[in-house]
Amino acid sequence: MLYLDNAATSVPLKDAADLASVYFEKYFNPSALYSGGIEVASFIKEAKEFVTNSVCPSGYECVFTSGGTEADNTAVFSFAKRGNAVTTSGEHSAIYEPFRELSARGLETRFAKLNADGSVNVDDLLSKTDAGTSFVSVVHVNNETGAVNDINEIAAQIKKINPKAVFHSDGVQAFGKIPFRLSSNVDTYSVSAHKIGALKGTGALIKTKRLKLYPLIFGGGQENGMRSGTENVPGIAAFYRAAQIRYSAVRENYSHALKVKKTFLSGIDGQGVKVVSPENGSPYIVCIIAAGLRGEVLQHMLEKQGVIVGTGSACAARHRHSRILTACGYTGGELEGVLRVSFSPETEEADAVFAAEKINEAINSLKKVIG
Amino acid sequence: MLYLDNAATSVPLKDAADLASVYFEKYFNPSALYSGGIEVASFIKEAKEFVTNSVCPSGYECVFTSGGTEADNTAVFSFAKRGNAVTTSGEHSAIYEPFRELSARGLETRFAKLNADGSVNVDDLLSKTDAGTSFVSVVHVNNETGAVNDINEIAAQIKKINPKAVFHSDGVQAFGKIPFRLSSNVDTYSVSAHKIGALKGTGALIKTKRLKLYPLIFGGGQENGMRSGTENVPGIAAFYRAAQIRYSAVRENYSHALKVKKTFLSGIDGQGVKVVSPENGSPYIVCIIAAGLRGEVLQHMLEKQGVIVGTGSACAARHRHSRILTACGYTGGELEGVLRVSFSPETEEADAVFAAEKINEAINSLKKVIG
Repeated sequence: MLYLDNAATSVPLKDAADLASVYFEKYFNPSALYSGGIEVASFIKEAKEFVTNSVCPSGYECVFTSGGTEADNTAVFSFAKRGNAVTTSGEHSAIYEPFRELSARGLETRFAKLNADGSVNVDDLLSKTDAGTSFVSVVHVNNETGAVNDINEIAAQIKKINPKAVFHSDGVQAFGKIPFRLSSNVDTYSVSAHKIGALKGTGALIKTKRLKLYPLIFGGGQENGMRSGTENVPGIAAFYRAAQIRYSAVRENYSHALKVKKTFLSGIDGQGVKVVSPENGSPYIVCIIAAGLRGEVLQHMLEKQGVIVGTGSACAARHRHSRILTACGYTGGELEGVLRVSFSPETEEADAVFAAEKINEAINSLKKVIG
Repeated sequence: MLYLDNAATSVPLKDAADLASVYFEKYFNPSALYSGGIEVASFIKEAKEFVTNSVCPSGYECVFTSGGTEADNTAVFSFAKRGNAVTTSGEHSAIYEPFRELSARGLETRFAKLNADGSVNVDDLLSKTDAGTSFVSVVHVNNETGAVNDINEIAAQIKKINPKAVFHSDGVQAFGKIPFRLSSNVDTYSVSAHKIGALKGTGALIKTKRLKLYPLIFGGGQENGMRSGTENVPGIAAFYRAAQIRYSAVRENYSHALKVKKTFLSGIDGQGVKVVSPENGSPYIVCIIAAGLRGEVLQHMLEKQGVIVGTGSACAARHRHSRILTACGYTGGELEGVLRVSFSPETEEADAVFAAEKINEAINSLKKVIG
């Protein structure tokens, strides 16, 4: 099987999985005061520093969570407390649904428009931000289209309008994939382990030390009281190792993925297929539309041919139409025929050629069937 | 090393760890609609049913969480919304701290007194419950003393006073260890994977289907919208297997642990050592007090002799004195000299003999040092 749904979840890297298994053996509770516990606690501290320093200037730290979703929720509910909160119509549901919850709790929420490629319309975002804005959230890489928002630049503009607004970005599809450093205008940043070759069940909220989180989960006071519960040590270990592996070659992998993406797109039969993803988007995500066809049907046909692709966000699989592509301006039959093809650094150009061929075949044969 | 801090965390069972590793390979996102995703989703459903059916009558289900702490928090913040909320002074911090947060948010919270062995004073608990009580939480097995509260009986009494009060129990130290079935008076029940030979990072909130949770974490709508975020599939797999293993022999293990506990206690030199744990408590937890000595010093001495024990709850290790033992009525020098020795089903009677000897030696030699 050729797995091209890496934006949904990734194949665990062997070294990352192996390091998790090492911490099945080093099972001590990191809060315990004997040497086994202290050693594990010190390992967690080291992992925290590596994850934080991979993308941040000094003055940042991170809190490990159960995943990107919890990290996003922690940022939203910590800082969107007064006035209004602003985000984009292109957010993952891990931001979008907490914003709906904010509305239900009576806070004013504002959603900025998207461009056709899934990036945020920056003018609209800025016009929605004002002196009453307590929190702004802009996804770094759109998880359905791969569009990259220039979060450092956007954060700088936001801070000019309201220096007190907390700026958060969901970096789940960027971390370990896109070469970048956060500027100090980005206050909080969420990342996920299982998108970069580590395991489900771990993520982190990276944050400036200046800001104090308001915990979602109270208890034993782990993570300096910001996130209680015994730390998922094997998950953190896998995350640490995967981050080391990905950041040791983040630029090379990026260039390689760019070639894979180009090869894939040049292999796709242009007839009746629309490419949603922008050229300057993430090289790891390609979203295409075969208008008038049904994405799930194509997905099943491709699976039979040995190619696994997504149909938009896995987390939104239970909704018929993509909320994000709707916000991009797509309508009717276009919203039915969405495929998301997402690569990993291990995807080869030959895989892209094969996938494009199989997609062309599936589209053509489905067109024949439905006349 | 002889590991006798199993109440803090347990050694992963080989079969449980192996099944986690199987799901490193079966890495598909359970929300994905191709066969790999569907297969994983169906496995999660099977795991849910096993965990629930291990302790519940029909009409119950469970939601997987990142651990016992999140499960407890979910119950508290779902149901303690109006009037007053009642709990005991013997709760783990995963209940106690959310209750403190409720107070900070303006809800009236009431804490029932403990008996000297750490069990709740039931008369006091009932007298604190009234028509305005929305939520009652009583720990099943006290994590420091091992005292067992008869939660089915207590829940029945609570429901007589106020049938609308939601009754929750923290079952983290009971699940997989104490043979019992919940009555339908217990509405919600929290359990943890890493206390029974599975992995850190997974737990569950078991609940009657009648009640709807109020999520802590919003997003992709996993767990029927009750707990969003990609499921920790390897963690769930390990939990499922560990629960199968533990429930296949829960009575035999209980009897065995009872022998281990008795052997241990009969090996402990009575001179100057107080046994806090009740005879009818969990056979897996023994709390003793060497009044006037310091628990951490004894702990370090024992570690050098190859025996790892706890000093009260690992999650409370950063507090000098145990909140729970204070509530039991212990004072001054007694609160300094606390050791918690906790067994697993794999602990042998010979281990108990060895540990008791080493504890006697450590106590005697520390007494000599401090004169």
